[in-house]
Amino acid sequence: MRYHRIPDETVRRLPIYLRGATYLSRQGVRSISSQKLAALIRINAWQIRKDFSYFGDFGTPGVGYDIATLIKHVKKILKLEAVHKTALVGVGNLGSALLAYTGFGVYGFQIAAAFDADKRKIGKKKSGVLIEDAAELHSLKERKIKLGIIAVPEDSAQDVADELVGAGVNGILNFAPRYIVVSKKVKVITIDIAMDLARLPYYVPAGEPNQQR
Amino acid sequence: MRYHRIPDETVRRLPIYLRGATYLSRQGVRSISSQKLAALIRINAWQIRKDFSYFGDFGTPGVGYDIATLIKHVKKILKLEAVHKTALVGVGNLGSALLAYTGFGVYGFQIAAAFDADKRKIGKKKSGVLIEDAAELHSLKERKIKLGIIAVPEDSAQDVADELVGAGVNGILNFAPRYIVVSKKVKVITIDIAMDLARLPYYVPAGEPNQQR
Repeated sequence: MRYHRIPDETVRRLPIYLRGATYLSRQGVRSISSQKLAALIRINAWQIRKDFSYFGDFGTPGVGYDIATLIKHVKKILKLEAVHKTALVGVGNLGSALLAYTGFGVYGFQIAAAFDADKRKIGKKKSGVLIEDAAELHSLKERKIKLGIIAVPEDSAQDVADELVGAGVNGILNFAPRYIVVSKKVKVITIDIAMDLARLPYYVPAGEPNQQR
Repeated sequence: MRYHRIPDETVRRLPIYLRGATYLSRQGVRSISSQKLAALIRINAWQIRKDFSYFGDFGTPGVGYDIATLIKHVKKILKLEAVHKTALVGVGNLGSALLAYTGFGVYGFQIAAAFDADKRKIGKKKSGVLIEDAAELHSLKERKIKLGIIAVPEDSAQDVADELVGAGVNGILNFAPRYIVVSKKVKVITIDIAMDLARLPYYVPAGEPNQQR
């Protein structure tokens, strides 16, 4: 199946649809209207209909969208039908939380390698994954691991990114709160936790005034 | 200053603009074109121009956007001019990482209280914040803390959300990988780390085939 060129904004919403559809599927729901899906995932119904139109027209008027078909489309577009081996760099608090996180499996991700520069951590296991020496990142090339997660302090993030790219990694999920500059062939998604928090006050009614800075 | 009604998708990008503009300001840059800003933050130039048009027209043709003005607009729209006290619930690996995270201050957030249900943690300090008994969440009401971060296991997330809302919290940043159902007056932003990772393979060239599931 071939799809139309899909805008980045739609691609960003596809995992939200996948999560919602997976949730509904587990509840035994077989089809859903755009209105009901909108209420669950808090995205406008017209936006959902527009996004789904990129997959070709698979909704049935009066019935809604078939959930199994929706899951199939989204997984195919996102290339989530294969298992994606991922390397984690940095096993501090955040890295440990990521290793323990059970949500990656839903989308077909497996943290297959973990690295840290701290000699006290190297050689130990965390959540079943061996912590390797960060000096050995180049080994990812022969292991054909193409995705990396950066969970190191801000100052080391760019160096780690360079080493990952040198080892053949072409997709990076970056948790360090800074810009990472890499070749245009490499896709970087930066998660800035504070930035998500920064959207909250906009939606919150004024009420009692907060302390002014 | 009053602003037009701003779409949610634009609101989502405002913190990205704020981060980019803050970064440029620290580098001593005073104004920037939409093209150069686009290259830095990896958002299309036309999208940037469209988003900025909601603030009224402040760009100068041939010169670009004044960075100090941009920062002022975005902070005002996002209501980030005040200090926002925030309560963290759950001081496990992820919660500890959040307490240690220095990026919140940039946007005016302060984790002013932390809670956990584990008796061994209660009464201790982490990154300078006292860990309180999760049974005392109701105390947020008198402390006028209106924002909450949920970093507890999936199974407790809904209960914690209910208690936060009961204590007067009206904005929640949720890290548990599940849907939280609250009153429509309360804004919930769910961060699903795996979901961000799920966008990466789409952008990554096929290359060597990954193992099929």
